[in-house]
Amino acid sequence: MIKWYLIKEIRKIEPPVLSIDIGGTKIAMALVNGRGDIIARKTRPTLASRGPEAVIENLSSGIEDFLSESEIRPEGLNAISMAVAGVIDMKRGLITVSPNLPGWNNIPLRKIIYDKFKITTFLLNDADAAALGEYFYGAGQGLNTIIVLTLGTGIGGGIIINGKLYFGHSVSAAEIGHMVIDTNGPKCACGNRGCLEALASGTAVAREAISRIRRGGQSSLVEIAGGKPENITAEMVHRAAKEGDSLACEVIDRAAYYLGIGVVNLLNIFNPEMVIFGGSMAQMGDLLLQPVRQIISEKAYPHMVKSTSIVQARLGNDAGILGAAVYAMEQ
Amino acid sequence: MIKWYLIKEIRKIEPPVLSIDIGGTKIAMALVNGRGDIIARKTRPTLASRGPEAVIENLSSGIEDFLSESEIRPEGLNAISMAVAGVIDMKRGLITVSPNLPGWNNIPLRKIIYDKFKITTFLLNDADAAALGEYFYGAGQGLNTIIVLTLGTGIGGGIIINGKLYFGHSVSAAEIGHMVIDTNGPKCACGNRGCLEALASGTAVAREAISRIRRGGQSSLVEIAGGKPENITAEMVHRAAKEGDSLACEVIDRAAYYLGIGVVNLLNIFNPEMVIFGGSMAQMGDLLLQPVRQIISEKAYPHMVKSTSIVQARLGNDAGILGAAVYAMEQ
Repeated sequence: MIKWYLIKEIRKIEPPVLSIDIGGTKIAMALVNGRGDIIARKTRPTLASRGPEAVIENLSSGIEDFLSESEIRPEGLNAISMAVAGVIDMKRGLITVSPNLPGWNNIPLRKIIYDKFKITTFLLNDADAAALGEYFYGAGQGLNTIIVLTLGTGIGGGIIINGKLYFGHSVSAAEIGHMVIDTNGPKCACGNRGCLEALASGTAVAREAISRIRRGGQSSLVEIAGGKPENITAEMVHRAAKEGDSLACEVIDRAAYYLGIGVVNLLNIFNPEMVIFGGSMAQMGDLLLQPVRQIISEKAYPHMVKSTSIVQARLGNDAGILGAAVYAMEQ
Repeated sequence: MIKWYLIKEIRKIEPPVLSIDIGGTKIAMALVNGRGDIIARKTRPTLASRGPEAVIENLSSGIEDFLSESEIRPEGLNAISMAVAGVIDMKRGLITVSPNLPGWNNIPLRKIIYDKFKITTFLLNDADAAALGEYFYGAGQGLNTIIVLTLGTGIGGGIIINGKLYFGHSVSAAEIGHMVIDTNGPKCACGNRGCLEALASGTAVAREAISRIRRGGQSSLVEIAGGKPENITAEMVHRAAKEGDSLACEVIDRAAYYLGIGVVNLLNIFNPEMVIFGGSMAQMGDLLLQPVRQIISEKAYPHMVKSTSIVQARLGNDAGILGAAVYAMEQ
């Protein structure tokens, strides 16, 4: 739904950022103005399985269509800013590797898009973008030091220190999902054992529910998944738990236990003002967050517990889009 | 050994900092000039077991004696700066709790010393001080983002980001020793299980050696400890390992394994330029650091391995003294 009058109004005062969140299933595009308003948006499927070239072609034509529908020429933009899951080499604008984009290795997406549209282009990690979004327009407004955990298929992290995204020495910090908290735990996609992501992501929650049911556990999840336990997702576990399914509740409590330990580690290391849970799994709200807070209050130093809030993200799926826009506007 | 002529020379240009490292067994005092030279030093026993009042009395008279021997009046000092192990409330200048100082709870040491000598006084955590010392005068010179792990009885941490000590929101960050890496691991002094400190500190190394010998392990450590395995220390394990004792080598490799995983976590979270190992256990040098580097190269992302050096601290026991002085001079 494009608000034409608004686009025209805003364009007169400040050119918007074309902000793009490239996910495994869809590409979300939005025009974002300097006040953080999304003045137009459009989505199209990523077609990730067709490989890098097809996705880039699809992305480029998506941008063209969106700009033309919005009656904006590329030169009327402040910048193009793209958020993508995975290891991003920000210095060189490369997607080093992405869990959602099979076959993408060291692809210079920033340069490709710049060459096509001749507009300043940025590329950053989606969890970093989500952290910036929540910091500027969401739950973390007005604070100094926050950590945002994006819980979805994997677990992404974004760290804001003194109001700035923390990138580390070679711009690849905040891989919080790959913090090992159980050296003998299950194998993670990264190759190590017992990473937070392998124990408490949406994938881990679904896997744990499936494994419990295969070992004979009784649960309404079998019916919810149409009789096929292998199709169970974290979202289904959430639904079953809300209806009081005890296996589903135990699976969520287990994820909360590990998330709690992960957050205790972050409190001990960073002593942040706030830890924000975003991503699809954060939709579980207090069903997940209350047991997380309980573990933290049992296991963290009391002065840390007192000085840190553990809250749900506010921007939902728009965190990445808004954060990518903020990033472009800050440069 | 006090270099009188130097003290007199330096005092003319810039007043030195009286820097004090208060440990569980000794209080080390030094006069440090603006170039980081220790121009005089003196040590006395802490007498920690006699409780806070006696230690404070002992500290005060120690300062008086040292200043009088150095022919300096308190007003000739730039500042007094004290480094102490434990949780320090820097805003209020309190020792909240200290592992080395039994009975110290919320003791306002900064105010006590200020009231006595009427000189600007600072109080900081000893691992933070060591990190500053290594950053300004030791292994981390000229870098931006480093992490210093102080391996002794416990494991302390200090984090330098963009050349500044990172303190966190309520000034109690960098408790890296209490990062849980094995949720089912041995109990830690902090109450949790499987903290890095419980698996890889000097105390953990000694405990592991003792436990292996009690379970029937053969080792030259029994003789080194005078036939009393319960007296084994990490330093003895180091000595035995240097002479090729296989039990001692295995115990060090085990600590290195956990340190390696701890550092992989820090690389994933911080992506620092350098991780520096200090404290008494770092005296093991490559005997400890080589297996640590090996684990890191197996378990960290290759681009992180490439961009981070793992090195031994350079300042030895002076890191805390020099870092506390730097901290005072920076304020």
